[in-house]
Amino acid sequence: MIDFPYLSDVVRSTPSRIVMVVVDGLGGMPHPDYGKSELEIADIPTLDALASTSSVGATIPVLPGITPGSGPGHMALFGYNPVKYLLGRGILEGMGIGADISLGDVAARGNFCVLDVEGSIVDRRAGRLDTETCIILCSKLNEIQLDGAEFHVYPVMDYRFVLVLKGRNISPNISETDPQTEGVIPLVSQPFSSEAQITADFIKEFVSKATELLGSSNSAANGVLLRGFSSLPTLPDFGNQYALNPAAIAAYPMYRGLAGMIGMDILDSGQTFESEIETLEANFNEGYDFFFLHYKPADSAGEDGDFLAKVHQLENFNRDIQRVIDLKPDVLVICGDHSTPSFTASHSWHPVPFMINSLYSEGSSAVFNEKSCRTGAIGTIQAEQLMLQVLAHANKLKKFGP
Amino acid sequence: MIDFPYLSDVVRSTPSRIVMVVVDGLGGMPHPDYGKSELEIADIPTLDALASTSSVGATIPVLPGITPGSGPGHMALFGYNPVKYLLGRGILEGMGIGADISLGDVAARGNFCVLDVEGSIVDRRAGRLDTETCIILCSKLNEIQLDGAEFHVYPVMDYRFVLVLKGRNISPNISETDPQTEGVIPLVSQPFSSEAQITADFIKEFVSKATELLGSSNSAANGVLLRGFSSLPTLPDFGNQYALNPAAIAAYPMYRGLAGMIGMDILDSGQTFESEIETLEANFNEGYDFFFLHYKPADSAGEDGDFLAKVHQLENFNRDIQRVIDLKPDVLVICGDHSTPSFTASHSWHPVPFMINSLYSEGSSAVFNEKSCRTGAIGTIQAEQLMLQVLAHANKLKKFGP
Repeated sequence: MIDFPYLSDVVRSTPSRIVMVVVDGLGGMPHPDYGKSELEIADIPTLDALASTSSVGATIPVLPGITPGSGPGHMALFGYNPVKYLLGRGILEGMGIGADISLGDVAARGNFCVLDVEGSIVDRRAGRLDTETCIILCSKLNEIQLDGAEFHVYPVMDYRFVLVLKGRNISPNISETDPQTEGVIPLVSQPFSSEAQITADFIKEFVSKATELLGSSNSAANGVLLRGFSSLPTLPDFGNQYALNPAAIAAYPMYRGLAGMIGMDILDSGQTFESEIETLEANFNEGYDFFFLHYKPADSAGEDGDFLAKVHQLENFNRDIQRVIDLKPDVLVICGDHSTPSFTASHSWHPVPFMINSLYSEGSSAVFNEKSCRTGAIGTIQAEQLMLQVLAHANKLKKFGP
Repeated sequence: MIDFPYLSDVVRSTPSRIVMVVVDGLGGMPHPDYGKSELEIADIPTLDALASTSSVGATIPVLPGITPGSGPGHMALFGYNPVKYLLGRGILEGMGIGADISLGDVAARGNFCVLDVEGSIVDRRAGRLDTETCIILCSKLNEIQLDGAEFHVYPVMDYRFVLVLKGRNISPNISETDPQTEGVIPLVSQPFSSEAQITADFIKEFVSKATELLGSSNSAANGVLLRGFSSLPTLPDFGNQYALNPAAIAAYPMYRGLAGMIGMDILDSGQTFESEIETLEANFNEGYDFFFLHYKPADSAGEDGDFLAKVHQLENFNRDIQRVIDLKPDVLVICGDHSTPSFTASHSWHPVPFMINSLYSEGSSAVFNEKSCRTGAIGTIQAEQLMLQVLAHANKLKKFGP
């Protein structure tokens, strides 16, 4: 959590309700073809009006210049230091598909690949084989028996799968088998510490049996590459730390998984932002005082490099947010986990605009975009500090010190 | 002190004189009834003119969103990390009345209260009994004998007193007896660690004897509540750290106490800001090169939730500050320990505007209010960093590194 040792002394539970809407990939940057950012071009009168009565600012997700993945982006918004509480790729990927992962298990991200007769990697992605084939190959791998450990292989998408290893005394402290290049043979997993030797041996056995099994069955892939060995970290409980009773509403599994890891209640959210809002409406008077609501489409459009599509998705968001406003939460936060400019067609390091609307907001002449927000009442802060501002605006923080 | 290990290498003593005026509760926020903050509404031409030739900015006292008490607020302005150097309430209150407190002593803040026949608290403040009665009751309590410890009870004001416990091996690591609510019996002080058992026993004995003594004498109060057990911390000396010869001028005891703890000379300040300024004038050529001058009325009006009263007190300050300007200090700093918006009628987390006026200031189009200052030449900084800016503007910092 935010590095403030007196947090538990200053938080207080009150009846006020907070809705924090995370617009994935919210921020952008001026696109050369348009001279402005997506938020600047978008017709978003509801958001602009909200900004004029909000405390506005911009968040730096990790460090200036550092582009975060969705994991660190969200962890920081929830007040967890995104460097200290970095989640491994295997864990994040496993959570994203709802894999059964318990404390102590080790998860890894896997690729199906093609090896030549000498064992060298010809294609790291096995011709980007289709998800259907991936499912078949995964069920094949699940026939393997390991001596002393259980495991399960879950298909993800295309050539990607997740391996979850369960057993006593297993450890994520082993090296990757994926050399992340072609024309070389896969690496043998090595323990980083002596107690991880057992795990490295399991992985060696699994890879060997998988290669044999795939190779003998004339499949589209005849090898596997593993990386991102990781375990569930022990994370401070969000509700306990902030004296909140929190619920998460997110259509995408990864965000539900992440919220579940920090102890939020996971509500059934359906597949769209509309169904998410229905869930919020249905649960608004059920005793929760913090709702995390996730909006995905802006990020997807940005990742596609489609400026006008991102503009359109921000305008859709502007339309849909009215239903959230109509619920009259005591505090409404609109923020983002990172920027996804369509110009870069990827996540980026740019600070992300946010606004906090409550009785205690400092209104201004702000509209809702990057330039306007970063010079607003709150200004540019570390994303990790946002939750304190949110709690302050909910009157949920007592005075610190005499 | 500010986390800069080479501070002692870069500070230098010069003849230039600094006056740092701390306007308690300086900052505010827009009030819904007025649409603006107190500073924005106030007619403060002298301060506005000063801002136009000053380096302006805003300070975050502790962390964004965290509301500080006066202790952390002032410690930060003097460059002391307000979390690391948190002062206990008993110590602050004791320093405020000039109580005799030595290293190793334990101080607590006390309330006289009224208990019913079953021992439950009926009135935590004993009808806010008057100071005269408080003095009489305190002298009664000083008749108590404890086996193995000395103590002294000091009247503060109304129903409030300070208990200072002196003895070998005593510890502030004990829990409070004040439940901070009524209708329940006072708590029994518990040790947080085994070595504090002795102190907890002394407190139990003191409370028991005090209750018996007050109850048998038909007083306006028949019980005591204790909280904020604390000891003197070891604090770096302000003058040594900054190569300054500092003096404090403050009408309120607490601020004199705090300044004394960091080694400032405490000048006789009278009871008003006018008498404080007279003290400043009388001592301006007495060899001091740093004056801390405290202005209280703006905070009091804010705490009362009286917007126009705070406006008025800021206008009074605007009038009186001319006499300080007329002394032509080399550096004049106007800053605040925290915000006290009359809308919240309490301290708040909002950044506090400041200005530093010297030969080295960067003038601007700024006027003196929250919005104008936070985007000024210095911008928004941690309050803990302000002293470096002040010393820089006094030309009292040498180059760092070759």
